[in-house]
Amino acid sequence: MAPRAQERIFEATLRLLAEHGYDGLTVEGVAKESGVNKTTLYRWWSSKAALARDALVHSELLALDPPDTGSLRGDLIALVEHVIGLLTLPSVRAVVAAMAGAAGNGELAETAKAFFADRFDREQAIFERARERGDLPPGADPMLVVDLLAGAVWTRLLLRQEPLGDAFAARAVDLVLGGSPGSPRPA
Amino acid sequence: MAPRAQERIFEATLRLLAEHGYDGLTVEGVAKESGVNKTTLYRWWSSKAALARDALVHSELLALDPPDTGSLRGDLIALVEHVIGLLTLPSVRAVVAAMAGAAGNGELAETAKAFFADRFDREQAIFERARERGDLPPGADPMLVVDLLAGAVWTRLLLRQEPLGDAFAARAVDLVLGGSPGSPRPA
Repeated sequence: MAPRAQERIFEATLRLLAEHGYDGLTVEGVAKESGVNKTTLYRWWSSKAALARDALVHSELLALDPPDTGSLRGDLIALVEHVIGLLTLPSVRAVVAAMAGAAGNGELAETAKAFFADRFDREQAIFERARERGDLPPGADPMLVVDLLAGAVWTRLLLRQEPLGDAFAARAVDLVLGGSPGSPRPA
Repeated sequence: MAPRAQERIFEATLRLLAEHGYDGLTVEGVAKESGVNKTTLYRWWSSKAALARDALVHSELLALDPPDTGSLRGDLIALVEHVIGLLTLPSVRAVVAAMAGAAGNGELAETAKAFFADRFDREQAIFERARERGDLPPGADPMLVVDLLAGAVWTRLLLRQEPLGDAFAARAVDLVLGGSPGSPRPA
């Protein structure tokens, strides 16, 4: 399938997931929304679950190229800024909110798991380079670092509904890397 | 109103919010679900928004007594464990997921804001005591500390749908307090 057609299908899928929740998402609805016929969709994706997983993992809307700035601090700041950029888009916020409600739906929960596992696999590059540079303290737990940082952005923007304030990414990263608690540190 | 009747109304409100979203929540529905008649509900709460806000802020289901263990580290670990306890309850997870989707709905967004502002007011006690003890580094940003810690729990449990692992609360707090990154530290 041509990449442009595929992206159109993925974005239609994510839009329907955001608007109607996983239960309201159907392959038929995606066909209608994307203008691609249902038979074609079923030729590429055997089920709604397969389509939803591919849309989450491969849509350009949620794309993640792990940053490579030359330092762990720089990479993590760029990563947090990327998450901030994503969660500022109403379309992405709605998809994330739908995933947050996945607990009651095993199929959506598996789909969300696949998405976040894929993201974490990509983020590993940041920590592997840090390890090679000797930047990463021994015993560091990369998933905990990522969950603290991304979680602070979700909490502030999606739950608390408050602005992040100046230099949020740098302040959060410095706090987690054991720097000064919440105050800016020179680069 | 008797506290027990009030709590029944609050829990009915949160259950309907979790099940049907804010748009599907009605004072009529709460009357039916709680067995309290609609006129009585309107005597106490002038609108659905007022009822939802009170239910979030005052329901025992979401109660928060800020811990007082004698140290900032101990208080934060207890706070994270409290958040973990809450987010392990399906009923609470569903309410939080509904709030995460508030961006598109001004009234629910205001309600979520009121809830999290109330929680943060209560959590201030932890940081005030730490400041008095000289436990809190100058320039520390309490809201950032809380958002990192609570956010890590939401991210791991609601989005990533992965287990927290051993001693999650202590490891997260030690990392944020500038201790060893992710490895346990003696109490």
